[in-house]
Amino acid sequence: MISAAVLPAPGQRIEVRSFDRPRLEQGAVLLKTLGSEVCGTDTHLAKGQLAGVPYPIIPGHVSVGMVDEIGVGAGGAPVLDVDGEPIAAGQVVTFLDVYGNCGRCWYCTVGHATTRCPSRKVYGVTLSADDGLLGGWSEFIYLRPEVHIIPLPAELQWRAFLSAGCGMPTALHAVTLAEVDFGDTDVIQGAGPVGLSAAVLAQLRGAGQVVMVGGPEVRLAAAKRFGADVVIDIARTTEDDRLSAVRDLTRGRGADITIEATGVPSAVPEGMRLTRDAGRYIVVGQYTNVGDTSFNPHLDLNQKHLEIRGCWGSDVGHLYRSVHVMAKYAKQFRWTDLISGEYDLAHAQDALDDVAAQRVVKALIVP
Amino acid sequence: MISAAVLPAPGQRIEVRSFDRPRLEQGAVLLKTLGSEVCGTDTHLAKGQLAGVPYPIIPGHVSVGMVDEIGVGAGGAPVLDVDGEPIAAGQVVTFLDVYGNCGRCWYCTVGHATTRCPSRKVYGVTLSADDGLLGGWSEFIYLRPEVHIIPLPAELQWRAFLSAGCGMPTALHAVTLAEVDFGDTDVIQGAGPVGLSAAVLAQLRGAGQVVMVGGPEVRLAAAKRFGADVVIDIARTTEDDRLSAVRDLTRGRGADITIEATGVPSAVPEGMRLTRDAGRYIVVGQYTNVGDTSFNPHLDLNQKHLEIRGCWGSDVGHLYRSVHVMAKYAKQFRWTDLISGEYDLAHAQDALDDVAAQRVVKALIVP
Amino acid sequence: MISAAVLPAPGQRIEVRSFDRPRLEQGAVLLKTLGSEVCGTDTHLAKGQLAGVPYPIIPGHVSVGMVDEIGVGAGGAPVLDVDGEPIAAGQVVTFLDVYGNCGRCWYCTVGHATTRCPSRKVYGVTLSADDGLLGGWSEFIYLRPEVHIIPLPAELQWRAFLSAGCGMPTALHAVTLAEVDFGDTDVIQGAGPVGLSAAVLAQLRGAGQVVMVGGPEVRLAAAKRFGADVVIDIARTTEDDRLSAVRDLTRGRGADITIEATGVPSAVPEGMRLTRDAGRYIVVGQYTNVGDTSFNPHLDLNQKHLEIRGCWGSDVGHLYRSVHVMAKYAKQFRWTDLISGEYDLAHAQDALDDVAAQRVVKALIVP
Amino acid sequence: MISAAVLPAPGQRIEVRSFDRPRLEQGAVLLKTLGSEVCGTDTHLAKGQLAGVPYPIIPGHVSVGMVDEIGVGAGGAPVLDVDGEPIAAGQVVTFLDVYGNCGRCWYCTVGHATTRCPSRKVYGVTLSADDGLLGGWSEFIYLRPEVHIIPLPAELQWRAFLSAGCGMPTALHAVTLAEVDFGDTDVIQGAGPVGLSAAVLAQLRGAGQVVMVGGPEVRLAAAKRFGADVVIDIARTTEDDRLSAVRDLTRGRGADITIEATGVPSAVPEGMRLTRDAGRYIVVGQYTNVGDTSFNPHLDLNQKHLEIRGCWGSDVGHLYRSVHVMAKYAKQFRWTDLISGEYDLAHAQDALDDVAAQRVVKALIVP
Repeated sequence: MISAAVLPAPGQRIEVRSFDRPRLEQGAVLLKTLGSEVCGTDTHLAKGQLAGVPYPIIPGHVSVGMVDEIGVGAGGAPVLDVDGEPIAAGQVVTFLDVYGNCGRCWYCTVGHATTRCPSRKVYGVTLSADDGLLGGWSEFIYLRPEVHIIPLPAELQWRAFLSAGCGMPTALHAVTLAEVDFGDTDVIQGAGPVGLSAAVLAQLRGAGQVVMVGGPEVRLAAAKRFGADVVIDIARTTEDDRLSAVRDLTRGRGADITIEATGVPSAVPEGMRLTRDAGRYIVVGQYTNVGDTSFNPHLDLNQKHLEIRGCWGSDVGHLYRSVHVMAKYAKQFRWTDLISGEYDLAHAQDALDDVAAQRVVKALIVP
Repeated sequence: MISAAVLPAPGQRIEVRSFDRPRLEQGAVLLKTLGSEVCGTDTHLAKGQLAGVPYPIIPGHVSVGMVDEIGVGAGGAPVLDVDGEPIAAGQVVTFLDVYGNCGRCWYCTVGHATTRCPSRKVYGVTLSADDGLLGGWSEFIYLRPEVHIIPLPAELQWRAFLSAGCGMPTALHAVTLAEVDFGDTDVIQGAGPVGLSAAVLAQLRGAGQVVMVGGPEVRLAAAKRFGADVVIDIARTTEDDRLSAVRDLTRGRGADITIEATGVPSAVPEGMRLTRDAGRYIVVGQYTNVGDTSFNPHLDLNQKHLEIRGCWGSDVGHLYRSVHVMAKYAKQFRWTDLISGEYDLAHAQDALDDVAAQRVVKALIVP
Repeated sequence: MISAAVLPAPGQRIEVRSFDRPRLEQGAVLLKTLGSEVCGTDTHLAKGQLAGVPYPIIPGHVSVGMVDEIGVGAGGAPVLDVDGEPIAAGQVVTFLDVYGNCGRCWYCTVGHATTRCPSRKVYGVTLSADDGLLGGWSEFIYLRPEVHIIPLPAELQWRAFLSAGCGMPTALHAVTLAEVDFGDTDVIQGAGPVGLSAAVLAQLRGAGQVVMVGGPEVRLAAAKRFGADVVIDIARTTEDDRLSAVRDLTRGRGADITIEATGVPSAVPEGMRLTRDAGRYIVVGQYTNVGDTSFNPHLDLNQKHLEIRGCWGSDVGHLYRSVHVMAKYAKQFRWTDLISGEYDLAHAQDALDDVAAQRVVKALIVP
Repeated sequence: MISAAVLPAPGQRIEVRSFDRPRLEQGAVLLKTLGSEVCGTDTHLAKGQLAGVPYPIIPGHVSVGMVDEIGVGAGGAPVLDVDGEPIAAGQVVTFLDVYGNCGRCWYCTVGHATTRCPSRKVYGVTLSADDGLLGGWSEFIYLRPEVHIIPLPAELQWRAFLSAGCGMPTALHAVTLAEVDFGDTDVIQGAGPVGLSAAVLAQLRGAGQVVMVGGPEVRLAAAKRFGADVVIDIARTTEDDRLSAVRDLTRGRGADITIEATGVPSAVPEGMRLTRDAGRYIVVGQYTNVGDTSFNPHLDLNQKHLEIRGCWGSDVGHLYRSVHVMAKYAKQFRWTDLISGEYDLAHAQDALDDVAAQRVVKALIVP
């Protein structure tokens, strides 16, 4: 029997349940889980703040496992990774939690909006525990044939890869959209895993100055360790203070690039003001609907000649690139410093509580 | 003596004053005015809604004139147009109202934000009548040596060029930023000269469908004549009606591109909603501060993966390209149909009143 | 029985063969062919100049047909078009000749190079007549379940759509890559269907001046009818003449954008020279290997700060956008003027001969 | 009296000459030279391979000096740096060797091709020693009023800044144009200062793998120290070997990005082949005309869907960004390791000889 942590319904506590070992269809892969992450989305799932979630679910969307079994039928073709190489038993791999882009709808074929295909399914979020081991907080994970698999290079330990969880591909998407220019001043709003990953990636874009606006203290300290030049604690400053601080750092101009990773609506107009005229502002943190905010279209947008880009989800390329970036720069950035807690399945509820309370930077489930 | 229409101060009426014929410095050009436009900015100037205006001023920023005199000193170099050709007496030319980009500040040299140089001066707006004939509502216009001059090609009559006034280069900047893809559905909010120009330019970008949202009737009729496939009268519809209408025209997706040219803050969140997921929204009409508006960062921006671009001012290239586009497509689009009133200097106040009341599409001052 | 024109092997003549009416699998569609095009690729196929072609084949890659039968099994889902609407019997549709992008390889998922997936199959080119009615020169065409189907709008007659054949989506891809700016001077090298389509699309990008360099006379006359401002006959000019002519049209600078659609290697260095410093050059016509050419990397590329973009194939979006652009601008451009010959199946060989000899602009097969 | 190294004419040896201390015009600045670089262009100047050079010249285009005197007349405005801050005596500054962009020609105003303005002048290259101290191999450098001045931040020592000389802004321009995506494999052709700078900057763009193709040994060793993952010695490999090696490193695909920095024409078709389908190739090293080369437009360009960008010169932004990038990452990259020789004015000829023989990575003139 296989144990997995199950979220039965919104507002209920996580419980460990037993599952039969699944029989693999052609092209499927069974992973023995090494670790899975706990992220802010999991706290939203626990509260029922996302629409269309088929509870009960096994949470855990970004995960790493060792290939335990491969569903190759008689005369079947090998299962291939994203690079086209055959998957082998014993390999340590990750996979994109999102799969099932249809390749046929308007968004897939004409719009080329890879994260807006309505057919997408998400491990740990939109797949029910009634349908199998389709989340990472489990001893084993069942990868359906359409899932995109990426082996971890030898130089990237699985804990290192998981240290920012889905924060890294999310931030990589955002920082790519940001089109950072060499020497830019980049302001990051929000010091959670997405914001911290963005602070690192901004340096891997050649930013001249990285300014982290966030909190609490433990996360700002992590930002400093990971190369932020300046940190500004939102608990000790007003919006005006922060605007003055950023202007002082930029000869009065404001940030060339600002990246929002907070989830707080009022951060958005503030971010518009922190950005210089003709700068660029990426909004990646508004993942759930927690209300409206107001701004001045003349002053904050039009006269500023400001560009704002909403950034939703990540695709295979963002995960693939995250793996390769984290491998290459593993000596420069001590990724595992981001992990401040590991929990077994029996303590998954504690992990969730610690993340919700921002007591940790990143929590892992290690079954 | 030279007559010019002068706006003495905010809230006062236009009056005709007399000026001496100026003595030309090296590199300056004196134009005998053929026509100048009246635009929404002029109504803001009359009410004192712009900061930093050195009243009294001679209004009129986009104008056409015949070269009357050229300030070439002894052994002086010829005065050149943007293409590097010498200016000749008798030529019919226009010029960019904005001049004086310093070429030295951070915005000019590093940011390449051509419309954000703080040294820019604007004919008819930031230059005082006390300093000379520095606006278009005048029998003659004095072009300082730094002004960028563009001759009109033979196939573009001066009235045709002036028919959209500054609306054309403004819209050309906006539609360029919009990066319209072939076959896109483009929604234009606002049926004034900027919006109508955008409706035409969207077709000259290969839009598959142009939808004009605006009013009043006279302007929507112009939009239809200029190729809009669908017009939606804001006076007869609610925001929900408009959203439904645009969705019905786009298989439920919303506009690929939306361009705001209204000046009304609430149009901005509406435009975000009219645009499809992963679409692009250009905000070019919020030229003065008339207050705040509110939106939902999750629904209207982040989850939509929406891109928003504020668009401020226009540069030499936008005007140069406007001239060449209007010349090439003068047979396809009857530009002069946009002009619904011509006024001499003595009736400049009437022109201003008619524009403020939206009784005309475009008014010209013809001294 | 169903008749189709078959190319048995390279160097052999087209012959009409009979096929059984196929039984439709779930999701397949059978089209009654209205028309199919003959293009330059077909002449290459006849000579055996493409690798990997599984002769015998039914040629014809861009085609239009009426939906005759839909493969919907018991309880089967409807077959959807690219917009997500159900296909209905009697509809007039086209389809992308290329299908079978895997959605899993590196090019599909990471590189987002939609036309470089190695799994792609092409109707009329890489599918054998032994496997069914998989080309357009046939009374019926069998659309496999993966094929992307696009209905023609009511305002676009099927002959109008077919008038440029695959030349239109190919050119639409190239002109999109060209990033034409408003008012640009665009030089098109080659007056075949790709070049002529590019000349039209350049105008639907707001080009200020379109210059066609090509031949023979019949095609240059078509270019003029379709809005080219200047045509230059390659049979009556030297490379130096053409360079001088383009410089004279552009104040000595050269073309802002040049698009190559010739298939002749020496056209490529010439196109580099025809383009201005910091301009852009699109190479779309070098579809088969007919040898090398030489150029000067310092003068022709580096010092010019020139950008060159090779453009290969087209994807669903290019075809979808072609359909919508051709529909919208059908009044402005008389598409059917491009068609200079229609042939039934029995005369398909004549069509091929006429295209090879450049005796026609576009030839259609109408079974 | 002020000493400066002068190149009297092509083919002649450098000689030290004496100059009077100049009288400063309003807005000019006199620098006491700390150091100046010797670059490949200087060896071309010595041989007379560049057109339009007004010999005798004082070579040295990228330099650092201490502000010795400022030309501020009575009531004169302060001289400002690029950030708009007043220049002060005693500051350590660099400046862009290129100045005099007219701000009025078509390239400046419409084309926005900042490095193609025909009015540009270049310190150490297109300014004569007869007109003053207009090159860096001199005890003092006279900065004309139009010159763009950039102070070095405290954390960037002047030797560190000069360690790659003009190679850094040149490479920064090239790597910016390359649009490196996170995790890309970047191949750099050429291990001189431009290539080595590009290898560093590729890492500051988040490249996943940097492959240096070049020589000799001393330069490849520097490439390894500066983070290249793989180096390939052109002296020990054939073109086929190199193509195999790059394919082996990239799952058979080829480089995502290739940057040419060799000056050898045959490197260009090789670079096209080293790059993957739908990849991007930047050609920045072909600074002088040393002949033609040949390629196959079908295989090397069109079918590959390859993008090639010639990259010419650098502008104020590239230098400004170089300064800020080098300051921020001075702890990560030991810039001064690139310097392998310092020479006083009397030994400037030796410096030139050592650079021509590739005996050094970077040589400095320290007066």
